Amino acid sequence: MNYRMIGFVLGRILLAEAALMLLPLLVTLLYGESTLPAFLLPMALLVLSGCALGIKPPKDTTIYAREGLAVVALSWIVMSLFGALPFYLSGAIPSFIDSFFETVSGFTTTGASILTDVETMERGLLFWRSFTHWVGGMGVLVFVMAILPMTDGRGMHLMRAEVPGPSVGKLSSKIRDTAKTLYAIYLVMTVLQVALLLLGGMPLFDALIHSFGTAGTGGFSHLSLSIGAYNNPYFEIVIAVFMLLFGINFNLYYFLLLRRFRDVFRSEELLVYLGVVAVSVAAIAANISHLYGTVSEALRHAFFQVSSIITTTGFATVNFNLWPTFSKAVLVALMFFGGCAGSTAGGLKIARIVILLKSSFRDLQRMIHPHAVTVVRLEGKPLEDKTVRGAYLYLSVFVMLFAVSALLLSLEHFDLVTTFTAVAACINNVGPGLELVGPVGSFSEFSQAGKLLLSFDMLLGRLEIFPMLVVCAPSIWARKRRKAGA
Amino acid sequence: MNYRMIGFVLGRILLAEAALMLLPLLVTLLYGESTLPAFLLPMALLVLSGCALGIKPPKDTTIYAREGLAVVALSWIVMSLFGALPFYLSGAIPSFIDSFFETVSGFTTTGASILTDVETMERGLLFWRSFTHWVGGMGVLVFVMAILPMTDGRGMHLMRAEVPGPSVGKLSSKIRDTAKTLYAIYLVMTVLQVALLLLGGMPLFDALIHSFGTAGTGGFSHLSLSIGAYNNPYFEIVIAVFMLLFGINFNLYYFLLLRRFRDVFRSEELLVYLGVVAVSVAAIAANISHLYGTVSEALRHAFFQVSSIITTTGFATVNFNLWPTFSKAVLVALMFFGGCAGSTAGGLKIARIVILLKSSFRDLQRMIHPHAVTVVRLEGKPLEDKTVRGAYLYLSVFVMLFAVSALLLSLEHFDLVTTFTAVAACINNVGPGLELVGPVGSFSEFSQAGKLLLSFDMLLGRLEIFPMLVVCAPSIWARKRRKAGA
Repeated sequence: MNYRMIGFVLGRILLAEAALMLLPLLVTLLYGESTLPAFLLPMALLVLSGCALGIKPPKDTTIYAREGLAVVALSWIVMSLFGALPFYLSGAIPSFIDSFFETVSGFTTTGASILTDVETMERGLLFWRSFTHWVGGMGVLVFVMAILPMTDGRGMHLMRAEVPGPSVGKLSSKIRDTAKTLYAIYLVMTVLQVALLLLGGMPLFDALIHSFGTAGTGGFSHLSLSIGAYNNPYFEIVIAVFMLLFGINFNLYYFLLLRRFRDVFRSEELLVYLGVVAVSVAAIAANISHLYGTVSEALRHAFFQVSSIITTTGFATVNFNLWPTFSKAVLVALMFFGGCAGSTAGGLKIARIVILLKSSFRDLQRMIHPHAVTVVRLEGKPLEDKTVRGAYLYLSVFVMLFAVSALLLSLEHFDLVTTFTAVAACINNVGPGLELVGPVGSFSEFSQAGKLLLSFDMLLGRLEIFPMLVVCAPSIWARKRRKAGA
Repeated sequence: MNYRMIGFVLGRILLAEAALMLLPLLVTLLYGESTLPAFLLPMALLVLSGCALGIKPPKDTTIYAREGLAVVALSWIVMSLFGALPFYLSGAIPSFIDSFFETVSGFTTTGASILTDVETMERGLLFWRSFTHWVGGMGVLVFVMAILPMTDGRGMHLMRAEVPGPSVGKLSSKIRDTAKTLYAIYLVMTVLQVALLLLGGMPLFDALIHSFGTAGTGGFSHLSLSIGAYNNPYFEIVIAVFMLLFGINFNLYYFLLLRRFRDVFRSEELLVYLGVVAVSVAAIAANISHLYGTVSEALRHAFFQVSSIITTTGFATVNFNLWPTFSKAVLVALMFFGGCAGSTAGGLKIARIVILLKSSFRDLQRMIHPHAVTVVRLEGKPLEDKTVRGAYLYLSVFVMLFAVSALLLSLEHFDLVTTFTAVAACINNVGPGLELVGPVGSFSEFSQAGKLLLSFDMLLGRLEIFPMLVVCAPSIWARKRRKAGA
């Protein structure tokens, strides 16, 4: 284990977080709020510890897979610990565990909140809360890599551990360029959304908050009723469409820039993603039409909610907790689907589900025709056995961790639907679930232990399980292994 | 596809079913009930169609894997169609789909019932209803194989498709001897249970009904309150212990006969199974102790319910629907566990879960130490990659089918817990779920379509998914493929 290198990367991340806090600090100054010290103190701590660890790169900058996994998990935990300080120090969230939960929920782009009266929070803190979505959406390490002095290709291990989905295509030969391109696309799309919301008459602060929540597929709003508070179809459509856009594999936007249109419009994952959205919207609209006056209104609400849940954003325009069982069941299923690989969305990811479906189908065919030669393809390319195995492994570990989490959370004595959907909403980074944790509810009722468990689940989901498991394995921290295993 | 051979095996099975109906016929005669024609007519039909198909073996008795899978699925469906006739013709269950549901539930050893007033049913019908559990527990094909004129080892394909669990060990070199040995063990254990219940003062009819339900891990009772109606700790302990015994891999009993005690007591699957039972009983007893007067009563109810649910039997002594959320969550988790491979229990099976856990753990270790050589072992033997892949495939297909079933069933507008646990109780062959389908509820409220869906799920679960899927694949029925693929 290369401890020095892990420390160095962590140090850089802390410095980056200090820099990121400048923005909410600015907002605090602009509005003349009293929460200035709640940002200054954490920033000072971040700079001090960041400098102590991250000034000088170590001689040995080697990062193997296990260092990559460990550094990703550690940096997300440490970032959340520091990121929670403004909420805690300002007294806006009196409990540190609650502040930590809210910050993990922000960085992991979950959007699950323990706040019961979000409107009373200061603007600087609200900005920071939503800004963590934007930062967490693309991944902090990708950002740091873009500015990190690493000349070799080793950064791939970091990126692979942080970017969601079963595989990361190398967009350009240099990892740093890839990171920069992705961030540029992300930034431009966010700016575009802000502009469109402003055009419709949304105040700048609101437009920023909701664009951060959309871009990161997070879902924090500064309004208790979320997007529903505006009752404005234009805002709803802009946000619903952008949620869908941020749920698409970012590689496709890169291909668009390169004018590789065929690669985009023939993308299997994109087609399945849009197909699932279309079918779900139609099914739910039919199922809820009796609740709303017109077909178009049913479609409007169905489209927004489906877009919000499949991309694991979690904004809401209606209380879907009151919808019929079928519509709720579809939404719960979509929580597990999630968006495309390489997007900011959570869940199992469409690509992984397509891989599982195709390879299961192939294995079933082999059962009938044992000697037939069949190859599973995705996006026209044959799937490596390793990729298929990886998807099977992911599902298997996911199911087990989900079951254990739900069992532990059931000790809190809430009803089964609350318990089950709270875990589903956290581990898939969605945000709201059903019943007590529904779109008008909150996670405030859970115990401290329950909140820590759900924070762990959010990190599990956002980092796609393995980094968090690896960092819990004792063998990774044994110095001896390094020489033996490397 | 060898259609003649499929027809021949089906014919034999129909004849076997006619013979099996002699027992309830005898009961009907003994009690002088008016339902005699309801048995005589189906028996006549069975004998006629059985003779038409199954008198003369075809020249070509070859059975490949796909014929094996197809014949298993078809025979279970056909058996249930004929088996439903006594309920329907007697008027005891006025709807044929309800009768079919009840019979599928019987043969698949699920124990889910559409009856709301079971006490009014005639004794001959009640006997037949519970006897289907006993027949379905060990599998009808195994029985037929024991009496079928097949000299080669091809029967293995049939057995593999019908006996639950990830792998079937060859107990003896001849498949027919294996089948006979298994049936002998099954019979002796059932007789032993009947004797013990009689000793405690249970009437013979009741003892038979409940021993059939226990042996097949089915769960039909002729009492609305199930075993709870007796409020007799002796009966409860006998039945709970025998449920556990029938949830153990039958190979282990064979090893006991051979005095291979080390193989039995070192069996990993057995240890995990008993460990899960012990931990669940302790956890639930602690969780429900405030509901019952004494610790011993809490333990007694916890033990019976855990034993009933993990073995997917479904008898009940209390209405666990009223237990705290944690206890209900544990029971729902146990539904998916199921008993050991090669037992009469349903669920995913302990062996498969152990394989998934071990290989997932191995794959995670490989992530940390990519060059380390690690072998996954079960029962001391290295696991073949094919077995591991099979377990991953099973879980993946299971999860997808479960999700699709739950989505479809949610169209019935019952609450989410009823919907989810109804599918869980059927696909795992448990019987009762929670809420409306809880231990004092019934499946009568579902629509005809819902009942057919749940019947399909019960068959999926009992035959371990693949036969039912294969029989739905169009390519299997194409004559051309036979020469090309075989």
